Amino acid sequence: MEKVTLNVTGMSCGHCVKAVEGSVGALEGVNSVQVNLDAATVEVEFNNGVVTLDKIKETIDDQGYDVA
Amino acid sequence: MEKVTLNVTGMSCGHCVKAVEGSVGALEGVNSVQVNLDAATVEVEFNNGVVTLDKIKETIDDQGYDVA
Repeated sequence: MEKVTLNVTGMSCGHCVKAVEGSVGALEGVNSVQVNLDAATVEVEFNNGVVTLDKIKETIDDQGYDVA
Repeated sequence: MEKVTLNVTGMSCGHCVKAVEGSVGALEGVNSVQVNLDAATVEVEFNNGVVTLDKIKETIDDQGYDVA
């Protein structure tokens, strides 16, 4: 299990939190997702044998947010 | 048909636009709804014989936004 904290811009409200947590959380291999709006971060715990960090970043990007 | 421009705070993203336009637009008697994020306004065209302005304001409030 690996844990990463991504800097994500553009998240501004509860709907954004839901969109990111829902989409990333639905990925196989993702154990937990936590969005911090104030810090503009997304903390993800995942199994890197099952899902890649690139896939996680792509999923956040697909929701319309920029991953640094 | 009546047209009103409401000042609404707390709308910050595309999801917010969708939440407001969807909920107000679903009211019987509402002809059109247009959210302007930058101006923080919601423009509503409605038939005041069918739906009241209070009902429209209440619907926006129920979505979690403050109507001035």
